[in-house]
Amino acid sequence: MPKINGERLLGDLKRLAEFGRYETGVDRPTYSEVDVASRHWLAAKYAEAGLDPVIDGIGNVFGRAEGATRRLLVGSHSETQPRGGWLDGALGVVYGLELARAFRDDPDLKGLGIETIAWADEEGHYGNMLGSRSFTGRLTETEIDGYQNRDGISLRDALAHAGFAGKPRIEVDPARYLGYLEAHIEQGDTLDSRGLRIGVVEGIVGIWNWWVTFTGQQNHAGTTQMARRKDAGVAMVRLATQIHDRFATLAGPRTVWTIGRMVVDPNAPSIVPGKAEMQVQVRDLDPAILARYRDALLELVAASDRAGPCQVAIEELSQTEARMMDTAFQEKIEAAAEQHVPGAHLRMPSGAGHDAQVISHKLRAGMMFIPSLKGISHHWSEDTKEADIVLGAQVFADAAAAILRAG
Amino acid sequence: MPKINGERLLGDLKRLAEFGRYETGVDRPTYSEVDVASRHWLAAKYAEAGLDPVIDGIGNVFGRAEGATRRLLVGSHSETQPRGGWLDGALGVVYGLELARAFRDDPDLKGLGIETIAWADEEGHYGNMLGSRSFTGRLTETEIDGYQNRDGISLRDALAHAGFAGKPRIEVDPARYLGYLEAHIEQGDTLDSRGLRIGVVEGIVGIWNWWVTFTGQQNHAGTTQMARRKDAGVAMVRLATQIHDRFATLAGPRTVWTIGRMVVDPNAPSIVPGKAEMQVQVRDLDPAILARYRDALLELVAASDRAGPCQVAIEELSQTEARMMDTAFQEKIEAAAEQHVPGAHLRMPSGAGHDAQVISHKLRAGMMFIPSLKGISHHWSEDTKEADIVLGAQVFADAAAAILRAG
Repeated sequence: MPKINGERLLGDLKRLAEFGRYETGVDRPTYSEVDVASRHWLAAKYAEAGLDPVIDGIGNVFGRAEGATRRLLVGSHSETQPRGGWLDGALGVVYGLELARAFRDDPDLKGLGIETIAWADEEGHYGNMLGSRSFTGRLTETEIDGYQNRDGISLRDALAHAGFAGKPRIEVDPARYLGYLEAHIEQGDTLDSRGLRIGVVEGIVGIWNWWVTFTGQQNHAGTTQMARRKDAGVAMVRLATQIHDRFATLAGPRTVWTIGRMVVDPNAPSIVPGKAEMQVQVRDLDPAILARYRDALLELVAASDRAGPCQVAIEELSQTEARMMDTAFQEKIEAAAEQHVPGAHLRMPSGAGHDAQVISHKLRAGMMFIPSLKGISHHWSEDTKEADIVLGAQVFADAAAAILRAG
Repeated sequence: MPKINGERLLGDLKRLAEFGRYETGVDRPTYSEVDVASRHWLAAKYAEAGLDPVIDGIGNVFGRAEGATRRLLVGSHSETQPRGGWLDGALGVVYGLELARAFRDDPDLKGLGIETIAWADEEGHYGNMLGSRSFTGRLTETEIDGYQNRDGISLRDALAHAGFAGKPRIEVDPARYLGYLEAHIEQGDTLDSRGLRIGVVEGIVGIWNWWVTFTGQQNHAGTTQMARRKDAGVAMVRLATQIHDRFATLAGPRTVWTIGRMVVDPNAPSIVPGKAEMQVQVRDLDPAILARYRDALLELVAASDRAGPCQVAIEELSQTEARMMDTAFQEKIEAAAEQHVPGAHLRMPSGAGHDAQVISHKLRAGMMFIPSLKGISHHWSEDTKEADIVLGAQVFADAAAAILRAG
């Protein structure tokens, strides 16, 4: 069986975190100088591990295992959120590197190849999940023309400045791989709060977003009698309350819903609000559950609009599809976890998006979580115990070996 | 009886609206060049009407009736809201001027003096109701030192630039006046929507303001399970809904309440809000009604805080006292209205603040409203029918004569 070298693994994770260090976390936006430097460092590490390194036209860094007869693609994204954590993405990338070395070093695993990958811009500095979309043929040249980051720098300029422009973009050859594996920190506290060590990801939730607009009539808060008011703020808080009440009755075991954004206009103490808007978001693995949330939401909006005195309108902003992970891969990850930490693992959905959901359109895909301390995510203070990092890598390597052996 | 000259009255109103004309309204902030020019124009008009004009150290323009044996002080403020209406304030100022002329022209009214006043900065460009506060001894030099407008210009600099700095500030001699009268547009649509012509103001409402803060825990909207959330946005919409429901059961005939300002933090679609804040405002003439609103609000806030999972705190921002208008003055205004437009007048509170509430601390005070078309206020499209403007002046003049005669 492949043998993880914990010291080597942690050393590389810490070295990668030097590129853009911020407090105890990392600030490494896609295509920034530190990001480009880290991608070249990864390519060199892949070469040291006996892989052929290739950086493609979108900045994906591959470590190709040309001599293998069966292959798994293993990795994650290597850029970070602004002032983000040191493990989000980086963990899965360095797990890929360590698995490649562990497989190379074990004569019993000859011919079973780990191909490594560090995707570009999963975090959406320019566009969501650019690297995995490019690899799966889901990113057009026209889309690339249109993207820019929050500073107004175009993706084309960023790619040129990074030295990636003009290189071919590598697209997946499905026959080349048995599948794709990605490890990631959980980003929530389900594992940490229950003392569990490994999460077996069943799928990545679908995320449905709606924008609800309330149109009333702006008026003086002193001189407009209550009976004559059309207060858009009142309409919003009433409907939001109804939504929270109704949604609680519809929930599957892991459904989450959020009204994270609410805006009142003109938002002044002595003015009856003439307009209000809010975004409603629901996440679940099960499309049937998402559909019943949508139906309930549309019904509540229509009832609020009919009841008056404000007009209430709803617009669908986005519906991402839930993506199930390969069940055989789930079983192999679970079996490896059960061997190392019996009973201390959990099957669970991923509430956040990951490259694995994009790859799952072209390859069998599997994901494994390790705990996040207190569930902190997208913040430089995000962290995980070193023992959990090392254990996770060993479970992940055993699962990869089992998948490759099964063929 | 005093005889209003409608053409002269409307001509002066239209001339005053030339100072800072904006669309069909006026943009004349306090101490701006157009405001200072309009105050000098008013002083000249007061002189033409046989009064002694004085502009004091805060910019109040007085037309002193030195020869009179009994006096009423009559006026309003002459600056406007940014891009405000042409009648808000100006109407009451020009009514004062027209009444002074009508009294001067009627030999039967000899010895009964109308002293005119154009207050400075009722609209609060630098500080609320500066002119009437200065006149009643409710504005200190230290307060003057501290005020600035939204562009960061200090009140001291503005007064110097206007040429008012260094002049004495005139303070009221209560023995000089029988009282103070102010006419104003209603700013609401109570009169306009019912086809009424005159509002007899019973008092100016007290305005109580509270700031409610919800503290939860900011989290990822995908990875944080519902049971573990402390969503400050949910706490806010639930409590706001309860407040609106409970407040409706406590209302007096004219109570108004408003949650005009709501803020969610960080207000992003995929983040569980960690903090939310809202301002709750109640207005009524009756302190007992205001007190029962306060009690209900404190009770609801405490219950929400106890119920959790968010902490809910409340802070009292301000409590302005309701100010009753002199009942004898109300009767005189009502009797004059009944004579001109029988049945087409209404006793009502003022939901907005006015200089009369400040003056009422030192002098008997009365206020009269004329209709605002569609209740539009604090917007350049605010307007009133010319016939209502002229009728209002005649009713107001008759009421003033009756008050002065009664002594």
